[in-house]
Amino acid sequence: MNNNLKVGIVGYGNLGRGVELAVKQNEDMELVSVFTRREPSSLKTVYGANVCACEDILDYKGKIDVLILCGGSATDLIAQTPEFSKNFNVVDSFDTHARIPEHFENVDKAAKDGGNVALISSGWDPGLFSMNRVMGESVLTEGNTYTFWGCGVSQGHSDALRRIDGVRYAAQYTVPIEKALESVRNGECPTFTTREKHKRECYVVIEQCADMDAIRQEIVTMPNYFADYDTEVYFITEKDFLENHTSMPHGGVVIRSGSTGENNSSKQTYEFSLKLDSNPEFTASMLVASARAVYKMFSDGACGAFTVLDIPISYFSKYSSEELRKNFL
Amino acid sequence: MNNNLKVGIVGYGNLGRGVELAVKQNEDMELVSVFTRREPSSLKTVYGANVCACEDILDYKGKIDVLILCGGSATDLIAQTPEFSKNFNVVDSFDTHARIPEHFENVDKAAKDGGNVALISSGWDPGLFSMNRVMGESVLTEGNTYTFWGCGVSQGHSDALRRIDGVRYAAQYTVPIEKALESVRNGECPTFTTREKHKRECYVVIEQCADMDAIRQEIVTMPNYFADYDTEVYFITEKDFLENHTSMPHGGVVIRSGSTGENNSSKQTYEFSLKLDSNPEFTASMLVASARAVYKMFSDGACGAFTVLDIPISYFSKYSSEELRKNFL
Repeated sequence: MNNNLKVGIVGYGNLGRGVELAVKQNEDMELVSVFTRREPSSLKTVYGANVCACEDILDYKGKIDVLILCGGSATDLIAQTPEFSKNFNVVDSFDTHARIPEHFENVDKAAKDGGNVALISSGWDPGLFSMNRVMGESVLTEGNTYTFWGCGVSQGHSDALRRIDGVRYAAQYTVPIEKALESVRNGECPTFTTREKHKRECYVVIEQCADMDAIRQEIVTMPNYFADYDTEVYFITEKDFLENHTSMPHGGVVIRSGSTGENNSSKQTYEFSLKLDSNPEFTASMLVASARAVYKMFSDGACGAFTVLDIPISYFSKYSSEELRKNFL
Repeated sequence: MNNNLKVGIVGYGNLGRGVELAVKQNEDMELVSVFTRREPSSLKTVYGANVCACEDILDYKGKIDVLILCGGSATDLIAQTPEFSKNFNVVDSFDTHARIPEHFENVDKAAKDGGNVALISSGWDPGLFSMNRVMGESVLTEGNTYTFWGCGVSQGHSDALRRIDGVRYAAQYTVPIEKALESVRNGECPTFTTREKHKRECYVVIEQCADMDAIRQEIVTMPNYFADYDTEVYFITEKDFLENHTSMPHGGVVIRSGSTGENNSSKQTYEFSLKLDSNPEFTASMLVASARAVYKMFSDGACGAFTVLDIPISYFSKYSSEELRKNFL
């Protein structure tokens, strides 16, 4: 027996794998089990964790402090987070911004029924970026908030490319436009069209004899995904793709450009940025810190749904409040 | 009668003046009174606020929701924050890092005796920088945290220059060394000597016939302040000084440079920065948002001392949790 935080992972894709790696970096935690909808014996994890079938998860009730849900937002989390929060403390990275209020309500009801704490929409956006959007706006009341994403791979846009006939592999990079960033950092408080903030770069491997011109045309005119952006399409070889475009870098910037003083004469710039070699590993690291916060909330007697905006920063840390005041404040 | 947050300001120097300006930017707040140790009738504030003597402050008990303490750390706050927290909710910007634990204990006892909430050491460092040091370390367990200050005016170092015989006016700028910042941003996780992180630039106006060489020598060899840095001394005219060196810009950067993944192969960089035309106006804006957070804590039934690490980010905002989830998450 020890006092380590006992976590479970539901879903073992890139994110679940990242959580396994991140738990290993945190001495105050241990991984009890990975839960999968695949045949458990078919799944070997990086460090050889225990693997169980999702349907047996209730056998672990009382043996896991926090479940970290690592499915996708659209079909997995929307159902899983309310379901599992009846029996476990949970954290998810639900990132369909428009459906967050609805997801929050569903999870809040289930978690309250079960007497558990559920932290939804953790990660970096939503997550750390949200914290900075709120903090920037709260301190600099008069001003504008800007979020830029990239340079990094967008899974949704890469998937859209792969659905095109004749496309074999594809990676889509979202790239912030340097001139726009510069204007914001100079305190010019510009307004932008979609096209002025980001451009999109597509690296595409096609099937033998596929029609490059037709594919390029289909990409750059695709509504919602590419039509509103300046989009560059590069056709590359399979070898080039596998060597250079299979990692998942990402990042971005939140800037609050505000003004204070008589006649708003003082420009004040608040900036938060991330530059990530691995998007899923970073999101996973944030989920693991969030699991610690969830358990502290639960230990305080809280129950229901929460977001990163509702939880003190000290709760994400392994250090005590005394240590934080002494060494970090 | 209205539901505005009623604030008082104790001390009307650059910071107190900044708070008066910041309260004006926040529609949910009103300034009840400024409290001063000067003769009240001698003090005219920017917007003509009510001004009272500090000794009459207890007449305002029950009429002010939060007192914002705007004195200096060394002699004012160390005594005032415990004293006033017996009768009022308070926020201060106590920034003597080494004495924070002692200050916290004193204030905690007094605030608990009075049933009040006291938030100490708010501002940007300590304050927003502390929040980011803790969050960066919590998410990226393996890595290094760096804080760089500047480019900006350090009051303490400028004061040290002014105490030198023959110096009439002086401003000291702390300047981060670009090469060091670059190395950190590249994920090289360097270790630095003091001299390698920051340099110091001094702009000095001397009395007629003062000895430049002696003054320069006294500056660059001054222990604690300048001896451990590369220090440049520029002698300038009074006109140049008054035109170009009387504003109080500042800023800085907190960087967490971490790694995740198998064999720590993914570099992950977390960065928070401020670029401020006016240091006191920005600190004041943070204190005003903090006053809102203090009153929400008080309304929750909390009492005692807190730091920015102990309070959810949503408490600093004028928006409800529902609005924040819908529009900011």
